[in-house]
Amino acid sequence: MGNEPLQFDVVAFDADDTLWHNEPLFTTTENKFRKLLEPYHSQFWIDKRLYETEIKNLAVFGYGVKGFTLSMIETAIELTEGRIQGNEIQRIINFSKEMLKTPVQLLPDVAEIIPELARQHTLMVITKGDLFEQESKLARSGLADLFKFVEIVSEKNAETYGEILKRHRIAPERFVMIGNSLKSDILPVLSLNAHAIYIHYETTWQHEQVGSEETDGASYHRVDTVSDLPEYLNRLTGSVAG
Amino acid sequence: MGNEPLQFDVVAFDADDTLWHNEPLFTTTENKFRKLLEPYHSQFWIDKRLYETEIKNLAVFGYGVKGFTLSMIETAIELTEGRIQGNEIQRIINFSKEMLKTPVQLLPDVAEIIPELARQHTLMVITKGDLFEQESKLARSGLADLFKFVEIVSEKNAETYGEILKRHRIAPERFVMIGNSLKSDILPVLSLNAHAIYIHYETTWQHEQVGSEETDGASYHRVDTVSDLPEYLNRLTGSVAG
Repeated sequence: MGNEPLQFDVVAFDADDTLWHNEPLFTTTENKFRKLLEPYHSQFWIDKRLYETEIKNLAVFGYGVKGFTLSMIETAIELTEGRIQGNEIQRIINFSKEMLKTPVQLLPDVAEIIPELARQHTLMVITKGDLFEQESKLARSGLADLFKFVEIVSEKNAETYGEILKRHRIAPERFVMIGNSLKSDILPVLSLNAHAIYIHYETTWQHEQVGSEETDGASYHRVDTVSDLPEYLNRLTGSVAG
Repeated sequence: MGNEPLQFDVVAFDADDTLWHNEPLFTTTENKFRKLLEPYHSQFWIDKRLYETEIKNLAVFGYGVKGFTLSMIETAIELTEGRIQGNEIQRIINFSKEMLKTPVQLLPDVAEIIPELARQHTLMVITKGDLFEQESKLARSGLADLFKFVEIVSEKNAETYGEILKRHRIAPERFVMIGNSLKSDILPVLSLNAHAIYIHYETTWQHEQVGSEETDGASYHRVDTVSDLPEYLNRLTGSVAG
C-alpha cells in the first residue's frame, strides 16, 4: 500500500446484500405485484406509482417489509380506483409473510469468511431497517454469534455512525465499515474519517443509488467479493496472513 | 425502608404508557375499525377476530402500528369474505398514518419530573416495539436529550434485559427499571435480581396482562404516579431530598 499499517478495533459489516441476499426478495415480490395488477395497468406505470408511494411513505413507515407491503396495498387501491378485490389484497399481505419467512440466503463464501475474520477481528453488524425483521434475519443467518456487536438503525448517515462510534468508544481511524451501498455504508463513514470497503452487489434499490458526483473525491477501498476480505484486511493492517 | 440504601448506576424507564400515552391510540383506532365493519359483523366478533389475528401475526410482524394495520386489513377481508371495498381498506391505512403522525402526549408531570431526575441520575429508555416508530416518538416527545441511553428492543424478557445490562456493564443490583407493564417491565427485571418500580396505567393491552399467580412472590416497588418518583428514589438511595 505504501502507507502506514492501520489498526482496526472494530470491523463492521452491513447485512442486507452484503452478508445475505435481500434486494432480490423485493424484486421478486414486485414481479408478483406487477402480475396481480397486469389486468389494470401497464408495467411501467405500476412500477412508477409503487416507487413513488414507497418514497412518499418512507417518512411515516420507515424501511422494511411491512411499510413496503402497506405501500403495495395503497398503490393497488389507487391504480384500480378501489376496484381491487379483498382476496387480491390478501395475496399482497401473503407476499409479505412469504418475504418475512423466507430462509436467509447467505452470499457466496460468507459462511466461511465471516468465521475466519471473527478469529482475527472484533466484528460488528450495522444494518438499517426494521428491528424485528433484521433481528430475525440475523438469528436465521447462523452468523449471530460471530458478531460481538449488533446495531440496527433506522437510517445510516454520518450522525448515526458517529453515535455508534461514540457509544462504543471507537476512534474513527480504528474503524472500518464494509458494505454494498455507497450511500449508506461508505460515504457517511468516510465523512467521519473512518475507513470503508465497498463490495459491489448485483442489484441496488433505486433509492440507494448515488450519482457519480456524490462519490467524487471520496477515497474508499473496494474488493470484488467477500472472499477477498481476509487478505485485503491483512494488507491494510500489515499483518502476515494467518 | 429498614434496608441498606441502594445505589443506582442507571434508572431506566419504559416509554409507551409510562412516559407518554400509547394504548389509547390503539383503542381509538380499534373503535374506528369496529365502526367500519359494523355493517358486516357484531362488535364482539370483530374484536375477537382482530385480537386473534394480531396475536397470530405477532410472530411474523412483531409489535407496532404497521403490523397492527396489516392485521386490521386481514381481519377486514376475512370478516367481509373479501367484500370489503378498496376505499375502506385505504381508510384503514389512513388510520395507521394518523397514529404514526399524532403528537406525542406525555403523561401528567412527566415533562417536569424527568428533567428533575436527569439531574440526579443517569437515565435510560428501554422500549419495545418498532424501531422507527419508537425513535420518532422519542424525538417528538422533547425528552430525548434527558436520556443518556436509548434501547429499543423487539421483546422485553430476562434475556434482552440481561444483554442490556451486560453491554452497558451495569450490575443488576445497581439498576432499576420503571414501567407500567408487570409482564414487560417488572417481572423479567426482578428475575435478574435488579430492581423495578411499577406505575399503574389506566389501560393495559390484553396481551400484556398477567394473572396474579405470575406476580405472586415477586417483590417490586410501586408508586402511584411519576411525580412520586423523585422522593421514592431518594428514599431507596438514602439521599436527602434536593
